[in-house]
Amino acid sequence: MQDQPIRQSRGGGRAARRANRTAPGFTALPALRRALPHCEVMDEEQVARIDDASMSILEDVGVVFRDDIALEDWRRAGADVRGERVHLDRGLVRELIATIPSEWSYRARNPARNLDFGGRHSIFVPMTGAPFLRDLEDARRWPTMADLNMFHKLSHMAPALHSSAHHIVEPMDLKVSHRHLHITYSSMKHSDKTFMGMTTSGRNAEDVMQMCEILFGADLMEETPVTTGNCNGNSPLVWDETMLSAMRAFVKRRQPVLCSPFVLGGANTPASVAPAVAQLNAEALSALAYTQVIRKGAPAIYGHYLSTVNMKSGAPMAGTPEISLMNFMIGQMARFYGVPWRTSNLLGGAKTFDAQAGYESAMTLNAVLHAGANYIWHSAGWNEAGMHCSVAKFVVDAEMCAMGYRMAEGVRWDDFDAGLSAVRDIGPGGHYLGHPHTLENFERAFFMPRLFDNNAYEQWLVEGSLEITERALEHAKKMLSDYEEPKLDEGVDEALRDFIARREAEIPAMDALNTEY
Amino acid sequence: MQDQPIRQSRGGGRAARRANRTAPGFTALPALRRALPHCEVMDEEQVARIDDASMSILEDVGVVFRDDIALEDWRRAGADVRGERVHLDRGLVRELIATIPSEWSYRARNPARNLDFGGRHSIFVPMTGAPFLRDLEDARRWPTMADLNMFHKLSHMAPALHSSAHHIVEPMDLKVSHRHLHITYSSMKHSDKTFMGMTTSGRNAEDVMQMCEILFGADLMEETPVTTGNCNGNSPLVWDETMLSAMRAFVKRRQPVLCSPFVLGGANTPASVAPAVAQLNAEALSALAYTQVIRKGAPAIYGHYLSTVNMKSGAPMAGTPEISLMNFMIGQMARFYGVPWRTSNLLGGAKTFDAQAGYESAMTLNAVLHAGANYIWHSAGWNEAGMHCSVAKFVVDAEMCAMGYRMAEGVRWDDFDAGLSAVRDIGPGGHYLGHPHTLENFERAFFMPRLFDNNAYEQWLVEGSLEITERALEHAKKMLSDYEEPKLDEGVDEALRDFIARREAEIPAMDALNTEY
Repeated sequence: MQDQPIRQSRGGGRAARRANRTAPGFTALPALRRALPHCEVMDEEQVARIDDASMSILEDVGVVFRDDIALEDWRRAGADVRGERVHLDRGLVRELIATIPSEWSYRARNPARNLDFGGRHSIFVPMTGAPFLRDLEDARRWPTMADLNMFHKLSHMAPALHSSAHHIVEPMDLKVSHRHLHITYSSMKHSDKTFMGMTTSGRNAEDVMQMCEILFGADLMEETPVTTGNCNGNSPLVWDETMLSAMRAFVKRRQPVLCSPFVLGGANTPASVAPAVAQLNAEALSALAYTQVIRKGAPAIYGHYLSTVNMKSGAPMAGTPEISLMNFMIGQMARFYGVPWRTSNLLGGAKTFDAQAGYESAMTLNAVLHAGANYIWHSAGWNEAGMHCSVAKFVVDAEMCAMGYRMAEGVRWDDFDAGLSAVRDIGPGGHYLGHPHTLENFERAFFMPRLFDNNAYEQWLVEGSLEITERALEHAKKMLSDYEEPKLDEGVDEALRDFIARREAEIPAMDALNTEY
Repeated sequence: MQDQPIRQSRGGGRAARRANRTAPGFTALPALRRALPHCEVMDEEQVARIDDASMSILEDVGVVFRDDIALEDWRRAGADVRGERVHLDRGLVRELIATIPSEWSYRARNPARNLDFGGRHSIFVPMTGAPFLRDLEDARRWPTMADLNMFHKLSHMAPALHSSAHHIVEPMDLKVSHRHLHITYSSMKHSDKTFMGMTTSGRNAEDVMQMCEILFGADLMEETPVTTGNCNGNSPLVWDETMLSAMRAFVKRRQPVLCSPFVLGGANTPASVAPAVAQLNAEALSALAYTQVIRKGAPAIYGHYLSTVNMKSGAPMAGTPEISLMNFMIGQMARFYGVPWRTSNLLGGAKTFDAQAGYESAMTLNAVLHAGANYIWHSAGWNEAGMHCSVAKFVVDAEMCAMGYRMAEGVRWDDFDAGLSAVRDIGPGGHYLGHPHTLENFERAFFMPRLFDNNAYEQWLVEGSLEITERALEHAKKMLSDYEEPKLDEGVDEALRDFIARREAEIPAMDALNTEY
């Protein structure tokens, strides 16, 4: 990796943590620094085998880029372009991806929320894209802009969520063609954490970039990322114009995109873990390489959306063992290439927030943390295979991220000798509850989940026999009543609103999905 | 480790797997062979630091053995005994634990259910000891012997449960003083898998051993373990007569016991992860060493029950990050000493089978598998901090064990080239559903959970909007209606019933807990 200017502006240091602690109202965690060892399920030879298989796919089978500009770019870069199909020599791929930075710092509008990223650093980002929500009364319905605002507020307040993302739910009450403007504004306004940028078309991505320029200034964006876009591939082995044009809007401004093959294992990959990973890896590499054709040295993230398909019903599944194994393998591949990587977290396929959702979600959380993912997306709210975002699940998932954060930080040794002294003080048959070491350490010693009820059955009865869904919804309401808006600079706010008004006048209002979307 | 005869009779090999496949009615999985790397959160120096701290505790603080026979045994073994307190020199401890075998094979009454154990081999064992159950209608009530029979049947039929355990629920309709006889008989009769032996007192443990001798013969028990007992320590640093006398009954017959400090982190340990592990490790080592004083070369298992305590309410918690970290550390220590180890799995603290139970349970499952535990106890049914066993959770947990099993087996590479050929056949933009590789592999490619609903919302509505509790209870009823008893040899059955009748006549019937219990 070459020396990148963006690597030099690191925001998650001691000063930022100090600023963070003094911020009013709540605590936000800095980027997670993982101490947990990576779960490496492949030896060196197997990593080389996947690499070789993926490179052979890129050379022999090729990848379809359904986009004239990309094809022209590839020709200029020296690839073997035959019609829409681009055959990529492994030497070219390796040369291109070598200039992707392995680490950087995300700038947030509140400097206390800047985030170290890549390498050992990871961030949790809420789910996005839900066409339904389960609301504050657990009713399943279409979301509105007000619902999205609510999720941005909850993201702002959850200590272990590092981003407000973008369209956590789809605001169905707005014109499709104007949504990206209002979604972006809501992310920027209701939280001072980092956020995601909409990539629903090249033109929409340009609008998002211009709004970022208003908020951060184009010069700062040259220095360091301020947002993240996502570009889904069409597995197997296709990238389309919508995604590629959005990618260009971001990458030419040095803003990172997730290069995300969209994998339904068994449907659009072979029905086997290792060959599916080889295909996914080829797809991710082809897009990562293209980011460097667009702009050498721009940040980019190895991505994927990954599910396995129930081969009897065709339904995508969550929390299955093969998803965990693929995450472990993909983590190894991304580290092999020295590129930060993105995965999906806390995924549920249940229709309600029942035990199924809990099992599936925690399976995913563990897989992701042991796999060592950097950009941990869909980290709150995801249920029903992404068809709805649940408010109850959102706040519980946010707490699960805090627990995963604690686990991944590893073991503290700073009070080891003090703890051993306590063992000598107490001796056989005693108890520690009143010991000075206990009194000093009890707040930080063991995570105490707020939303899990661990009291006795009898006390639980007295308190109304509430299951976690009800407790979580109560907690969400409390959070929202405590919410304080982190005010935007008035001039910036006005400029953003002017921009939106101008673009709304320029862009034809369309109710249905427009062709670019 | 010395060469042990029990290591030589290995039951989980190719022949056993073949016998297993041809067994009527259902498939049972052999012992899990873990390919997943161990999650090692400590470096060598930190392992040495825990070891040194534990040995210093054993030397300087000592351990209380509230049992005259054990104190006399320790004196003879050369320990420094001062009153009830035994100070153990690290040289003596290391010498003693060195003769514990690191691997063996469990003999089951059906040879197809023999199990490799220790090292890379792990087994899943259901929960035990619940004073309440949530039954087939999800009602919370006191359990009866009929309920225990039911759980033994479900254990028998669940492919990834390797044992029928013992008193999964406490049969409240039987006299306390006679329970151990009927519990043992139910384990033996309703399943041909391995089972646990009751250790509620020395005298009860003797009865259990005699029943095992009737079923297996004393000679076979000299060769290889047929059951497993559990001995809880009273943390900090106390072992009592009840447990030690039961331990002696097992160990003198070469039957393994779990040497299990009972740790409520923060209440009976220091409020900090690493010192708590140092104390737990000292406790486990003291009991492991004592097994070798009882009988050199007898199998024994490094155990623990481990929870962290909510320092505000005093309630034990489940699925918290520190429990995961302690499991990772304890796994490292057990491997450092070359002794198989036991932990607890799929623990829930919820009062119902809600999402909390799912999250907590899956957090534990992952911790245990990444930690590389061998004897994975409490693997089905545990909720409400062990106060009830839930039928619904029992069958879902059993399926979670099957998923964990698949994950821990690691990645298959046997069809890698075939899968890559499929990628070349399909090319960009195609799908794999009709490809021969898919048709050949779809059954085994991706785990398809039976109890997780991954269908579309609309289909779920049509099917009655059932949450997982209802689906699981339906499934349990179906299993029970399909159950076929694996018949005991008639002579053995009669001998067991005669033994029980004789002992019932000899042991005074007591309703309340007797003093030995």
